[in-house]
Amino acid sequence: MDIETTPLLTDLYELTMLSAYRDQGMNETAVFEFFVRDAGERRPCFVTAGVDTAVDWLEQAQFSDEECAWLRACGHFDDDFVEAMAEWRFTGTVRAMPEGTIAFPEEPILQVIAPLPEAQLVESRLMNILHGQTLLASKAIRAKLAAGPRMLVDFGLRRAHGGEAGLWAARSCYLAGFDATATCLAGARYGIPVSGTMAHSFILAHNDESQAFLNFARSHPDNVVLLIDTYDVETGAQRVTEVAPQLASEGIAIKGVRIDSGDLAAHAREVRRILDAANLSQTRILVSGGLDEDRIADLVADGAPIDGFGVGSRVDSSADVPYLDCAYKLHEYGGQPVHKRSEKKNDLPGRKQIVRQYDSDGVMSGDTIGFDGEPIEGESLLVTKMQGGERTTDADSIEVARQRCTDQSQRLPASFRHLDTSPTYSVYHSPQLKKLTS
Amino acid sequence: MDIETTPLLTDLYELTMLSAYRDQGMNETAVFEFFVRDAGERRPCFVTAGVDTAVDWLEQAQFSDEECAWLRACGHFDDDFVEAMAEWRFTGTVRAMPEGTIAFPEEPILQVIAPLPEAQLVESRLMNILHGQTLLASKAIRAKLAAGPRMLVDFGLRRAHGGEAGLWAARSCYLAGFDATATCLAGARYGIPVSGTMAHSFILAHNDESQAFLNFARSHPDNVVLLIDTYDVETGAQRVTEVAPQLASEGIAIKGVRIDSGDLAAHAREVRRILDAANLSQTRILVSGGLDEDRIADLVADGAPIDGFGVGSRVDSSADVPYLDCAYKLHEYGGQPVHKRSEKKNDLPGRKQIVRQYDSDGVMSGDTIGFDGEPIEGESLLVTKMQGGERTTDADSIEVARQRCTDQSQRLPASFRHLDTSPTYSVYHSPQLKKLTS
Repeated sequence: MDIETTPLLTDLYELTMLSAYRDQGMNETAVFEFFVRDAGERRPCFVTAGVDTAVDWLEQAQFSDEECAWLRACGHFDDDFVEAMAEWRFTGTVRAMPEGTIAFPEEPILQVIAPLPEAQLVESRLMNILHGQTLLASKAIRAKLAAGPRMLVDFGLRRAHGGEAGLWAARSCYLAGFDATATCLAGARYGIPVSGTMAHSFILAHNDESQAFLNFARSHPDNVVLLIDTYDVETGAQRVTEVAPQLASEGIAIKGVRIDSGDLAAHAREVRRILDAANLSQTRILVSGGLDEDRIADLVADGAPIDGFGVGSRVDSSADVPYLDCAYKLHEYGGQPVHKRSEKKNDLPGRKQIVRQYDSDGVMSGDTIGFDGEPIEGESLLVTKMQGGERTTDADSIEVARQRCTDQSQRLPASFRHLDTSPTYSVYHSPQLKKLTS
Repeated sequence: MDIETTPLLTDLYELTMLSAYRDQGMNETAVFEFFVRDAGERRPCFVTAGVDTAVDWLEQAQFSDEECAWLRACGHFDDDFVEAMAEWRFTGTVRAMPEGTIAFPEEPILQVIAPLPEAQLVESRLMNILHGQTLLASKAIRAKLAAGPRMLVDFGLRRAHGGEAGLWAARSCYLAGFDATATCLAGARYGIPVSGTMAHSFILAHNDESQAFLNFARSHPDNVVLLIDTYDVETGAQRVTEVAPQLASEGIAIKGVRIDSGDLAAHAREVRRILDAANLSQTRILVSGGLDEDRIADLVADGAPIDGFGVGSRVDSSADVPYLDCAYKLHEYGGQPVHKRSEKKNDLPGRKQIVRQYDSDGVMSGDTIGFDGEPIEGESLLVTKMQGGERTTDADSIEVARQRCTDQSQRLPASFRHLDTSPTYSVYHSPQLKKLTS
């Protein structure tokens, strides 16, 4: 069973509820909405991601013989139910914010409109997809905002939580404005630019740092970025200057050096001085090692001569906010708005739309959450992605989604673009929504 | 390309280094070791997990036509290299701590002994697998230690970082002593017990809480656990007592109720009182919602009448320590010990073994990191899992690994079993290791 497509990547209760709905003939149209609750001052807004993965999954998910065999064997279901599941397909409608849209707390990011059992069954994996990718993209854009025009590369596969998270991190980082990823599969699958340097093991296996530099450069003459901190950063930089003339005589330029440990700002200054003194002012300095938006912002503010950042663990695990308080909630059933009203978790009933307004400079000035069809001036954010269980539009290419994210992030109020800790943005409730929830 | 098996789930630099090694004919035997550095007082020890997944991956990984096509198209490699990769297989030896072993900082958890290019290429995915599963199991065991004999179920798929992380979380939690998971695929793939209750949407779709309880119970008479906090917890509990006689007359017992919000200890007390007053003292109380080891420990210390815990986001994302500072380092090449000596990241050279000693009560009293073959008294922790690219032993069943973890956790010094913030454990360096690193 393929992790990416199997409908058994779900919580058991989705299936037990399904069989109860079936026993009761509860098959009316349900509207479920996925949204993220307030995530605190380090995530004042979110970058929507995973919508197209979710739609792909809804198109493909079905119970094969293998999955039905487990349903039969697990002891929770009768044969009749298993036979019904063998026929199960998602036949509903999906409306969503397109990939790369900026969203705010409580705003529905994706809406499923389908017969109750279908809309229920898809909950676990839809949440897993939308949460996972939105989490990572919402972290990544902070690194992008901090780095500005400097190069940003995702290095984080090794410490992402599993293979799918590594792939999603690569995609989410690129969506949020990174320049490239180290993860080959993201290149193969999404066409994202893939780049890389070398590991300490390469230097260690040679035992002679200069020889390692020469060998790597000659094998990859078009993309020479040398790792200089295996032994001593400044000595490493010095050796770069020593091998550079020989390589230049072979037509090979040293594009960059990477520093992966120590005081990155101090090292970068010293290395810049060493390189410049050897007429290697075109050789760029990349740094890596425990970076996130805060450390990048500090390095930038410090004026360190750094041309690019490799980020890994802290971004790929969204270390400061490792999960978002998201939900996929039933908000309408059989035409009636419904909502849970437990302590501290009130949510907004009804089949909704979000409408965004901009000021005269094109800066976002406020969103209104209202009902679908309610007349509200502005740009409607939820668009139809599926109808009758089929895509109504092609998936956005990663480039289109990335451009959307860039455009939208440039239209955020300035306080959001500067990683302020308490930016403000107005999300209003429409007159009809207020009336229903008052 | 299947995320779980494709060798393109790797960092580009593994491949560029490989082609450079190839150009230089660098093919001598390398020894790489995977270990975790000091992870702070919230992770004084680790539960080894992912070893068998890693071995499975090493047995299967190969470049199919599809992968070779990308290598050819990506612009970094020549045809000659791509042809060589089409033939690539892992032919090396792997020694590792078996799944469920307790490990400490700096101790090699897995060791790869193979021709340099093979051992290098597998780095990214091996780290992704070992880090991801060890991270999750090392978090999960803390919840187990806090919960003691009370029931513990993993609910976290929806907020795990991707599908593979959700599956790994289910497996890692069970390995660490949980009773079950909600994730069906973990049941199908590993035979882990799967359990579940109901979602708020089930109640909301009925609009009548009592009717929802009746319908669910009749559909699943053998496993009735009712969610009672959709509207008001105590009212929900009261309704449970009202439907119980009718269900009892149909031969259906209410096994449990679940509370998912509010002051869990206070609600549990009140619900226990309501249930007991209605002769439902056999009905168990399960709680969920933002739980981790700290909150579980508080609830247990408080004496709240709670029989079981459902844990999700905070455990499945290892929220307090969302990644471990792990490494996969070259420690020997061509028979010579090697190691990186950058600032603050000194690591231990050579092909190592870890030997564990126990006191007269069977409690772990200290580990010694030494060289393979060095005479040290005690239990050797690294065992051979693969030779010549093939498994030398079957993968441990999850039950065997889980039992190992239970046994070992019972032999941990008491300070580790009580979630102390600064437990002490001695990890010694052997005489030969000291000599080499002094």
